[in-house]
Amino acid sequence: MAYELYYWPGIQGRGEFVRLALEEAGADYIDVARSSIDENSGVGALMAVLEGEDIVHPPFAPPFLKDGDVLIGQTAAILLYLGDRHALAPRDATKRLWVHQIQLTIADLVAEAHDTHHPLGADFYYEEQKPEALRRAKHFREERIPKFLRWFEHILTHNPDGDKYLAGKRVSYADLSLFQAVEGLLYAFPRRTKAILAEVPRVAALHQRIAQRPRIRAYLDSGRRLEFNEQGIFRHYPELDGYRRGL
Amino acid sequence: MAYELYYWPGIQGRGEFVRLALEEAGADYIDVARSSIDENSGVGALMAVLEGEDIVHPPFAPPFLKDGDVLIGQTAAILLYLGDRHALAPRDATKRLWVHQIQLTIADLVAEAHDTHHPLGADFYYEEQKPEALRRAKHFREERIPKFLRWFEHILTHNPDGDKYLAGKRVSYADLSLFQAVEGLLYAFPRRTKAILAEVPRVAALHQRIAQRPRIRAYLDSGRRLEFNEQGIFRHYPELDGYRRGL
Repeated sequence: MAYELYYWPGIQGRGEFVRLALEEAGADYIDVARSSIDENSGVGALMAVLEGEDIVHPPFAPPFLKDGDVLIGQTAAILLYLGDRHALAPRDATKRLWVHQIQLTIADLVAEAHDTHHPLGADFYYEEQKPEALRRAKHFREERIPKFLRWFEHILTHNPDGDKYLAGKRVSYADLSLFQAVEGLLYAFPRRTKAILAEVPRVAALHQRIAQRPRIRAYLDSGRRLEFNEQGIFRHYPELDGYRRGL
Repeated sequence: MAYELYYWPGIQGRGEFVRLALEEAGADYIDVARSSIDENSGVGALMAVLEGEDIVHPPFAPPFLKDGDVLIGQTAAILLYLGDRHALAPRDATKRLWVHQIQLTIADLVAEAHDTHHPLGADFYYEEQKPEALRRAKHFREERIPKFLRWFEHILTHNPDGDKYLAGKRVSYADLSLFQAVEGLLYAFPRRTKAILAEVPRVAALHQRIAQRPRIRAYLDSGRRLEFNEQGIFRHYPELDGYRRGL
């Protein structure tokens, strides 16, 4: 039976981290909210789960994944589940937890990237919190992006099985997620991210390596991959990347 | 061998979620950065791990836990590890993942609570971002606290094993963490949180029930439990709880 992935249509968002794992696994899945097969698909189907009064394990927010009777929310929990089922995580318990720890740190990076354009929260549009976004983005750009990317570089450098993957000798869901995080940073903060990537060659190489994996390449080249845009988590506002008008 | 917990001294912060699990388990642990036994303790010992050049599995930030050779960062990952070892999580794989999913959602709540007083990030003091904090806190107080607490109430209401715990018939680390989240909300936003708790009786009862567990009660009454304060994640600034000067 195909997995059912539920995420907001129109943006990559956190759903994309799950999509990349499903694509790399070659798993059969339905992207429910982007489908319009019948009344059990589309955004209505997503809202029906979110608002369902009788759901025993309700997700707090998308993305969530249905695998038969199992319903899982929270991106990192979904990846923990898929990692075991599709050999996208080490079998060794300590290494498996290590990959999860990396994933949770990627989740923190993603949340901080979001907050650069929405420091005052989801109650206001970007245009209503632009001065605040400028202040928050400066710190993210100058301190946090380098700190995160250097942490990944350290991990790759110290992996006893080589510097190709974050853990062990094989690709894990955390590698796929780091690829996506770098993609997002390159979209949102191209000037700053390119400069930092030059200092973290193993992270830059991992980003390229994942893009060339046959199933990921096929997915990226397909029409299924949504484009980044200014409704998602990673948004390109040149002013937040350090460009000033007139310069 | 005793666990070694590493977290900033002086605040409960995210370390407290780990402490509560260790206390409930009756586990032997050293709170390293709060100790001053020898040169291997204190904040210096914490910084030595954070800045260690040769650490294979470096934590990105505190808290982190050492169990012999195993070093684990990220609060939710630490709890996943402790949950298995101390029967603080269900054995059934699906329920175990469900408890983890709840924990990740509590982590989101905690991050949002922090951002109410630091919407512009850690680069500025609260006093430097007070107007922004007022705007962000309003949304958190009016929309997010009720949304989160009602979600936990739904989970308790629908638990097939009864409404005493979030999952199954026994206490899990997620119950302990929900207790701590409610404690934090009551400290930081007493007016608003008390009003909402009246609408979610099962969450309020769980909060009371956890406080009365013998080991937790003993810990809360001991001098080991730090007080909440205005350096931590949950901070009591009356203006962020909706009080206005002169009213």
